[in-house]
Amino acid sequence: MATAASPRPRPRPPKGQRTRDGILRTAVNLASVEGLEGLTIGRLADELKMSKSGLFAHFGSKEDLQLATVAMARQIFVEYVVRPALAEPAGMPRLWALCDRWLGHVETRIFAGGCFFTAASFEFDGRPGAVRSAIVDAMQSWLNILTRSVEEAKKAKHIQSNLDAAQFAFEVYSMAVGAHWAFELLDQKNALSKARESILARIRSLATRRCPPLRAARST
Amino acid sequence: MATAASPRPRPRPPKGQRTRDGILRTAVNLASVEGLEGLTIGRLADELKMSKSGLFAHFGSKEDLQLATVAMARQIFVEYVVRPALAEPAGMPRLWALCDRWLGHVETRIFAGGCFFTAASFEFDGRPGAVRSAIVDAMQSWLNILTRSVEEAKKAKHIQSNLDAAQFAFEVYSMAVGAHWAFELLDQKNALSKARESILARIRSLATRRCPPLRAARST
Repeated sequence: MATAASPRPRPRPPKGQRTRDGILRTAVNLASVEGLEGLTIGRLADELKMSKSGLFAHFGSKEDLQLATVAMARQIFVEYVVRPALAEPAGMPRLWALCDRWLGHVETRIFAGGCFFTAASFEFDGRPGAVRSAIVDAMQSWLNILTRSVEEAKKAKHIQSNLDAAQFAFEVYSMAVGAHWAFELLDQKNALSKARESILARIRSLATRRCPPLRAARST
Repeated sequence: MATAASPRPRPRPPKGQRTRDGILRTAVNLASVEGLEGLTIGRLADELKMSKSGLFAHFGSKEDLQLATVAMARQIFVEYVVRPALAEPAGMPRLWALCDRWLGHVETRIFAGGCFFTAASFEFDGRPGAVRSAIVDAMQSWLNILTRSVEEAKKAKHIQSNLDAAQFAFEVYSMAVGAHWAFELLDQKNALSKARESILARIRSLATRRCPPLRAARST
């Protein structure tokens, strides 16, 4: 899901692209609350107070709209979670920043309804097709980034060298998803800060003396 | 979510009740695949090849149908996961049986689309109302059962006495939910057996010498 941070400012996109992006940001928020399957061109037109024919000019079908919405959600996720975390030093600081910012993106409502991809995962796991494939691709990419950061932590000797990187990445991510569930469904307001403590405790229990001090990067 | 196992066989319910139960078991499976919000009386009538008016005789509205479906899912979950686990000795064997059977109910497709309640949780967390409340009630009850089993393990001196029971219960459950996600969405066929290993390793790392040997109860 990541790309390296660009050293040059990107040129401003043309107006048609900006309009499309604005529509898709609304679609992402709507889908994060009401589900991606309920995201029809008619429902989105209502929300945006636009005509359906105006929207059809941008997206030819419901599936096109869903796929463009997943792509926009992925772009927002990279901007908010992945890119700033990848700017941290390789190893444990980067792994921790990925976890911390993931929890932060739920806490600060980067998507109106919580994590877009967690909701979409459970909604589409039983619906084969192009939309499911796009969600799988995004999630596989996210797990790969987490796993790579654990590998880098092993290489930097921040963490025990015999650790199963993929399994450990998966465990810390599961703790974050569980906290998201308790925060959103059970209204446990401290679920995300408790997850921070638990993940940090788990990371520290496996850290070596060479591991630098870890700090919450969320608010930066 | 639990009730103690009844010592006497329950009387066979009357025919109307059996018909209603059969309808609801179909509704539970349909909702576990397609979502609970898509479960309309029309959609269920199609699936059952019944008339909509026949279904209206059982359920007056979509919300009534959704609530009855959640109640049936809860009954099935108690039958398959909770009641057999509560028959295990109090302490770690019971905690482990709860985890093991939870993973087993995903693995053996007790619900056609994976865990009914995990899907419903992420679908309804942003939809206030009676259906969301019923899901919250079921999930809170399940977390309470897990937490109580950790408390019992502390009391039986199977596990370290300074452990935060609610937090530990939550962590092992998060690992199970994460595994469900990888199994259903990413088609990682070994996700559930890896979760068994991870949860067992985590339990054992905190166990005392008084903890009895733990075995997979799933297939019994």
